[in-house]
Amino acid sequence: MTMGEFDMIARYFTRPAVRAALGVGDDCALLQPSPGCQLAISSDMLVEGRHFFADVDPHALGHKALAVNLSDLAACGAKPLAFTLALALPQVDEAWLKAFSRGLYSLADSHGCELVGGDTTQGPLNICITVFGEVPVVNGRSQALLRSGARLGDDVYVSGTLGDARLALDALRGRIDLPAKLLAQARIRLEQPTPRVALGQALRGVATAAIDISDGLLGDLGHVLKASGVGATLDTSIAINLISANDHPACANGLISLKIQLGYVLAGGDDYELAFTAPVSARAAVQLAAHQAATPVTRIGHIDAEPGLRLVDAQGVPVTGDFSSFDHFA
Amino acid sequence: MTMGEFDMIARYFTRPAVRAALGVGDDCALLQPSPGCQLAISSDMLVEGRHFFADVDPHALGHKALAVNLSDLAACGAKPLAFTLALALPQVDEAWLKAFSRGLYSLADSHGCELVGGDTTQGPLNICITVFGEVPVVNGRSQALLRSGARLGDDVYVSGTLGDARLALDALRGRIDLPAKLLAQARIRLEQPTPRVALGQALRGVATAAIDISDGLLGDLGHVLKASGVGATLDTSIAINLISANDHPACANGLISLKIQLGYVLAGGDDYELAFTAPVSARAAVQLAAHQAATPVTRIGHIDAEPGLRLVDAQGVPVTGDFSSFDHFA
Repeated sequence: MTMGEFDMIARYFTRPAVRAALGVGDDCALLQPSPGCQLAISSDMLVEGRHFFADVDPHALGHKALAVNLSDLAACGAKPLAFTLALALPQVDEAWLKAFSRGLYSLADSHGCELVGGDTTQGPLNICITVFGEVPVVNGRSQALLRSGARLGDDVYVSGTLGDARLALDALRGRIDLPAKLLAQARIRLEQPTPRVALGQALRGVATAAIDISDGLLGDLGHVLKASGVGATLDTSIAINLISANDHPACANGLISLKIQLGYVLAGGDDYELAFTAPVSARAAVQLAAHQAATPVTRIGHIDAEPGLRLVDAQGVPVTGDFSSFDHFA
Repeated sequence: MTMGEFDMIARYFTRPAVRAALGVGDDCALLQPSPGCQLAISSDMLVEGRHFFADVDPHALGHKALAVNLSDLAACGAKPLAFTLALALPQVDEAWLKAFSRGLYSLADSHGCELVGGDTTQGPLNICITVFGEVPVVNGRSQALLRSGARLGDDVYVSGTLGDARLALDALRGRIDLPAKLLAQARIRLEQPTPRVALGQALRGVATAAIDISDGLLGDLGHVLKASGVGATLDTSIAINLISANDHPACANGLISLKIQLGYVLAGGDDYELAFTAPVSARAAVQLAAHQAATPVTRIGHIDAEPGLRLVDAQGVPVTGDFSSFDHFA
């Protein structure tokens, strides 16, 4: 069946504006950050075959399309406000749209983030979301967490778990065989990542720098190091425990080697966890923020002066290995 | 040749932030509307084969991708501030990127609208721009021009010319033969439309409702009528003069019938002019706004109580014809 563009917007993507001064249905949406706040803006585009499989559950896809954007807000410590959705679809599929919009709204509602506008068109499936959050400005100084604030001696932390999304991806691509239960557990991390929105806000004034891990820990932390003009050393004996599959008996029995697990942790990508730095003096404050946000964090290394990223084991012995990060056009 | 995603952003889409608190290169851009202003937001997605031909000049495409977004800001009377660009490309083509980014920046610079962030990925060519402008809030009341403000007795106006973009499109599709000079003139309107940004701002406090004409005058004005709960009558003897090709001797000699010309004017689409309403008492103010913005405007009808849109000739006799508007999924 076919459906006019305007009917589709009306049926699946229109609700009364709550926080916004004006929502879907005019030439522009109108939005006003709270007094004393500035607007944080991020945009991500998801393409079939590149960011998701053609047969992915549309409810999960609706969740993920917004989650990757909320993750950018989290990384700068912003509180979500609103988003726009531009959607190219090969044809109007009502069942797909219904599930997609439900997945999208479910996550949006849990963060009080409202859909205020966008565009729909016919074309190869493409989902582009631009998200808006707010960050306080105190005494003329933005409280946003930037990539450029890491300082010599800072601790390096990551939130949650790393590597499970890539583990699931490799299993779905047929590159490895996983027990069904392990795949199901890892697949949730791939298809329905949890943006660390509460943690990002709790880390304002505590963390010195932050980034969200979309392309892999080493690559993304590398952006922080470059922007901050510093280097870092990470302890792989701690990092290896960040992949939750690590606890599974199948892994303990050697189904996936420790080296491959470490690769997933360090360079798997699609994690949407936060990597951040904070002074040693802020260790208690970091733990308090993690507690407030109900999000575990793990200290995995420290910032040092020598540029670049070094991996060491528990004894401080260098660990070698080619853990390259993911680059869309590489 | 191939080029890493980050190199591509650095080379073609990064400049120091001027107006924004933080531009390209972190997880989010940071933006603060001027005191007493709210943010106007709009998003448009352009897809190859749907919104432009595969062989379109990339400089013109860069212009148009931003122009259609600026046109939405114009329609709500907003002053442009910044935009994000999400771009899916089948492969990295440096000559294409160079021309595209130049076309984009050229229009952006002329409106003081800066690129503050975005995304690049591999995929079927898709350009999604989200644009940000600001609108004053006076005594708690937004000065944005909405679709819903048209009132009984108001005049109906359009800016500039209508129909030439669709004339060019039909010629490029091989549906009609045009003299080279006429095609060149019409093609500029199709490929490099002029968003009526200055006019939109000049009409704040003067116009009662406004919309930009992207899908065709009848369809877009129809949105204003519906949102305002009114109807309108338009004079086709005035409208026919809105297509600039009308002056060309080839048209006068019957190359394109008056009926087809009227169809282009009323439902051609891709015009990116403003349609707006204003009280009869504001006629001098409308002319002053048009003069300030150096943009011609034409009064083509009036708002009446009966819902729907009626076409009449100079004598008030109803004009019939099937002038349907364009709908992406119809």
